[in-house]
Amino acid sequence: MTLWALLLEYDGGPFVGWQRQATGLSVQQVLETAAAHLSHGTPTPTVVAGRTDAGVHAEAQVAQLTLQHPFDPVRLREALNFHMKPHPVVVLRAAVAPDGWSARFSAIGRRYRYCILNRRPRPALRLGRVWHITQSLDAAAMHRAAQTLIGRHDFTSFRAAACQAKSPLRTLDRLDVARDGDMIAVTVQARSFLHHQVRNMVGTLRLVGDGSWPESRVATALAARDRAVAGPTAPAAGLTLLAVSYPQDPFATAYDVVAAPVPPAALVDTL
Amino acid sequence: MTLWALLLEYDGGPFVGWQRQATGLSVQQVLETAAAHLSHGTPTPTVVAGRTDAGVHAEAQVAQLTLQHPFDPVRLREALNFHMKPHPVVVLRAAVAPDGWSARFSAIGRRYRYCILNRRPRPALRLGRVWHITQSLDAAAMHRAAQTLIGRHDFTSFRAAACQAKSPLRTLDRLDVARDGDMIAVTVQARSFLHHQVRNMVGTLRLVGDGSWPESRVATALAARDRAVAGPTAPAAGLTLLAVSYPQDPFATAYDVVAAPVPPAALVDTL
Repeated sequence: MTLWALLLEYDGGPFVGWQRQATGLSVQQVLETAAAHLSHGTPTPTVVAGRTDAGVHAEAQVAQLTLQHPFDPVRLREALNFHMKPHPVVVLRAAVAPDGWSARFSAIGRRYRYCILNRRPRPALRLGRVWHITQSLDAAAMHRAAQTLIGRHDFTSFRAAACQAKSPLRTLDRLDVARDGDMIAVTVQARSFLHHQVRNMVGTLRLVGDGSWPESRVATALAARDRAVAGPTAPAAGLTLLAVSYPQDPFATAYDVVAAPVPPAALVDTL
Repeated sequence: MTLWALLLEYDGGPFVGWQRQATGLSVQQVLETAAAHLSHGTPTPTVVAGRTDAGVHAEAQVAQLTLQHPFDPVRLREALNFHMKPHPVVVLRAAVAPDGWSARFSAIGRRYRYCILNRRPRPALRLGRVWHITQSLDAAAMHRAAQTLIGRHDFTSFRAAACQAKSPLRTLDRLDVARDGDMIAVTVQARSFLHHQVRNMVGTLRLVGDGSWPESRVATALAARDRAVAGPTAPAAGLTLLAVSYPQDPFATAYDVVAAPVPPAALVDTL
């Protein structure tokens, strides 16, 4: 039995999200179906660092799965990528993980980027990757208002009704809003997020950007601990999971060409 | 009669290229069909700065057309964008151009970017926007070799057989190759290019990057003035037209909200 850490890139557009659902194809199903080909049909359940919603993309999602037979990491990656064709999901790296490591619970940071295309004409090149807002937004005001969300707070006002987290307390480390021409990039970083938290924060900051809200109202909305007083949920398409961090990078030893698989003991020592 | 300059963004993927062809839908046809709606069906032929091939994208292509009736620039843009739906082509700006201005012949510079995704796994997020090369490329060697192409040369070795230009002489101002992680961006700038010149230069530099060619062979290939001695044509998908420059920016006065159309006389004075 070997526990594997996988680094994944995917286009969330054609999927119902990370998690398996009866309503359509999920990233999880694509990965698990590919993995089943490598384990003679034995189910290979996966655990993921961030369960992205339908339409949300990932440049570097992290998942785990356990395989009974040993594999060379590069061959495992190539085999999974072969079986996941033609879906827009690929394994970028595969590495043996130490016993007890969890893609989800060992993670100590998640970073997302939310992209807003702020111009009148609809997107021709970035379709499905941006939230298209035609009203002129004041990105500097959005950034200033966002700073009141930094730190440890009860984020009930920015939490989806369906959120299953036990506590609404989260520590937001970073929320930067920066304009580059007609693109506005919102970069957020935290140990973990509540369900829809990023999209609800972006949907609220947009109200500051277009002048509907004074900057101070974001702090008021946070303090209210009431979802009804914050802004609407921003569309999924603008969101991309950029990175998941761990106390020790599980892929530090994963090279494109690996002579021999890294023994699990070597990783256990460093964690 | 008003001569209009249009700044266009498009995804080249679904088109047979800029130019009208019997084999499928072109960007030109989408634009001219939209323009015909605004001129009571009168044909409105367009001229373009760079006739991009099938699959080549544009962040800022420049085209011209003449309309009999006056329009407010913002309304013209909105009307063209409405009629071009749902095709991935949009007008970013529209501005009245001075008599005698030509989108093609007045242009004094074209800048393109060619993107190579250099990694083993296929692209999930940048599909159709990159040339996927799995062999490791030495971007620094490609950049060094590229510098021998800078300046005024006979580019016959990098010219498509179908090229209709009278002279194979061109002046290359810039050819930078730079790696950022697994992406290699090739940025090229010249007053004008021969047909397939950028893609043929990239296809040749790739041979330096993967070690098939010594760096010095690029200069030898250029000097030979023989298409057969240079490398193959790089795929269209990696190429994007970034900018076209003119002695005077035709869109300098094109704002998102314009109170009144700019009178042509004002632009004539500045050119």
